[in-house]
Amino acid sequence: MKINGKEFRTIWLEDNKVKIIDQTKLPHKFVIKDLKTTKDAISAIKNMEVRGAPLIGATAAYGLVLSIIEKNDLSFLKKNSEDLIASRPTAINLKWAVDRMMKKLSGVNSNEILNLAISEAKSICEEDIGFCKSIGLHGLKIIEEIAKKKKDKVNILTHCNAGWLATINWGTATSPIYHAHKKGIKVHVWVDETRPRNQGANLTSYELNEENIPNTIIADNTGGILMQRGEVDMCITGTDRTLSTGDVANKVGTYLKALAAFDNKVPFYVALPSSTIDWNLKNSKDIPIEERNSEELSHVEGLDKNNKISKVLIYPEKSKAMNLAFDITPAKYVTGLITEKGVCEASTTGLKKLFK
Amino acid sequence: MKINGKEFRTIWLEDNKVKIIDQTKLPHKFVIKDLKTTKDAISAIKNMEVRGAPLIGATAAYGLVLSIIEKNDLSFLKKNSEDLIASRPTAINLKWAVDRMMKKLSGVNSNEILNLAISEAKSICEEDIGFCKSIGLHGLKIIEEIAKKKKDKVNILTHCNAGWLATINWGTATSPIYHAHKKGIKVHVWVDETRPRNQGANLTSYELNEENIPNTIIADNTGGILMQRGEVDMCITGTDRTLSTGDVANKVGTYLKALAAFDNKVPFYVALPSSTIDWNLKNSKDIPIEERNSEELSHVEGLDKNNKISKVLIYPEKSKAMNLAFDITPAKYVTGLITEKGVCEASTTGLKKLFK
Repeated sequence: MKINGKEFRTIWLEDNKVKIIDQTKLPHKFVIKDLKTTKDAISAIKNMEVRGAPLIGATAAYGLVLSIIEKNDLSFLKKNSEDLIASRPTAINLKWAVDRMMKKLSGVNSNEILNLAISEAKSICEEDIGFCKSIGLHGLKIIEEIAKKKKDKVNILTHCNAGWLATINWGTATSPIYHAHKKGIKVHVWVDETRPRNQGANLTSYELNEENIPNTIIADNTGGILMQRGEVDMCITGTDRTLSTGDVANKVGTYLKALAAFDNKVPFYVALPSSTIDWNLKNSKDIPIEERNSEELSHVEGLDKNNKISKVLIYPEKSKAMNLAFDITPAKYVTGLITEKGVCEASTTGLKKLFK
Repeated sequence: MKINGKEFRTIWLEDNKVKIIDQTKLPHKFVIKDLKTTKDAISAIKNMEVRGAPLIGATAAYGLVLSIIEKNDLSFLKKNSEDLIASRPTAINLKWAVDRMMKKLSGVNSNEILNLAISEAKSICEEDIGFCKSIGLHGLKIIEEIAKKKKDKVNILTHCNAGWLATINWGTATSPIYHAHKKGIKVHVWVDETRPRNQGANLTSYELNEENIPNTIIADNTGGILMQRGEVDMCITGTDRTLSTGDVANKVGTYLKALAAFDNKVPFYVALPSSTIDWNLKNSKDIPIEERNSEELSHVEGLDKNNKISKVLIYPEKSKAMNLAFDITPAKYVTGLITEKGVCEASTTGLKKLFK
């Protein structure tokens, strides 16, 4: 998708270096960063220079490519693969991507391994783009149905960033929106700012602006009253891990919007590539919920009056804070899952109809 | 209550000037500000130097005192009373306090009017303190019941600031907490930061710190997952307007927490002095919901690395934002109303048992 009118992807290989858009600098600065080693890739994942389940998976895959470039050695690769998996605990397709790469590379001889790793990492990216596009086309049908009943624009609420910046291109939750916009359907997006890291404001609103899609940032607190007033026609979010039961782990706060949507009879959709489905875990209480540094809450970065990026402490100095990154939206509050294979009920039955 | 170990109230009259704590400067600076005219009082209300339904009411009452000090003239007083009522639309006891003052002062002769106005404004404050204390004692019983079943501390979640800084002393939602703490019950408060103005972080956590009550600030998004994990024993919030039906208008985001509490069987209480009850309005959809300046969202103030207060833009420059200040929590999600006369069901029947 576009930034400053130019087409980009979120990750690519160039001169044996992995290039990423440093998303911690957005929206105030657009910086392309080089990753040269697996350690660089791990730190990019940990520090959320890359984020979003699909992009984390792709970065992990390219992280293994960097491992081979740095040292073509199997035990080094094995160690790096474990470190990559440990870099963030909640997103399921981090492990999925690493496992897929390691399976592909197992038993391959050392003068072929690099090319094979590169081609597999590229495949992961290309597949993700294909999946995101399909998600968009399936989700588009839902938006078209709503648009038929509306005189004016379709109002869509989203939380966090499941946009193209969270994937390789198109995004998951945003892909139906981009496809609707390209088809000439009038859409307007309510963007939850998504504290503490404000990925909604910093990334979703930013990327929608760059594609000229009307959007309005709101406090995470605001979705409820908007739904009470009938100003939301549908919600679409992404997910970091979807259980086969249809329960969804996504950015903290998603659950609260799903409750409000349910209470106000607003359809609530979750968009996902099948790589985020966890077929093994049965109980959503067993999903590890990442607790991140509380400084993400107490300190906020922005542009000061001199147009310089400045970080300010916004909490009382004596105060403690706690920063859980995800919550669980039970399947009963999810109207449907929008996947690359179609839209299904958020349930084992629904998912099994599309997969396996 | 205490700030830096010294007892304060939020508003008082001294040398014909009204003194307030400028709450926009908290938590980084503790500044006492003089209000000299009704205009000063209106701007203090509008700019949220004073906020919280009871304190807004008291400031409006003292605003009329200032009108008489400035010019002892009935039509001037009338005009000022109307401007005061128009200064913020949602809080019901702004109008209540102004109406009460104007009724008291009607037909009073001009050499008695100032003393009578002062004494009535003081009465409003003293009554509010008495109400808040009673709310605390009634709410204390609920906390005591929960404490009996807990081995460890009682975890209470609150939204925004319905603390003593929102009233004259004690607070509404915090009063049961202060009373429990004074009685030696171990309490810990989850404080919603309460975007966009962060009154939870800036004021509630600040005042709890100053009274040595353990508390932890969380993003507004986090209450849901904490309840899912069983880490919240009860919620208590304040209210800006309570309908006789039991529906509650309070700071935006309250509704989302009430939904999560209901979904997780966590009791959700609303604490209020009866002055916030609107006996006339029957339909909560008719409550005016204030829309505030979107700069409250896009710009954040805090301490920079040089310990100076600095304001930063946190949104993309091209982005729009929208800032609704309140939402409606339907009575069915409210476990009970804690009033100065006791705890009742959130319903007309419940309220009528205590009042009228």
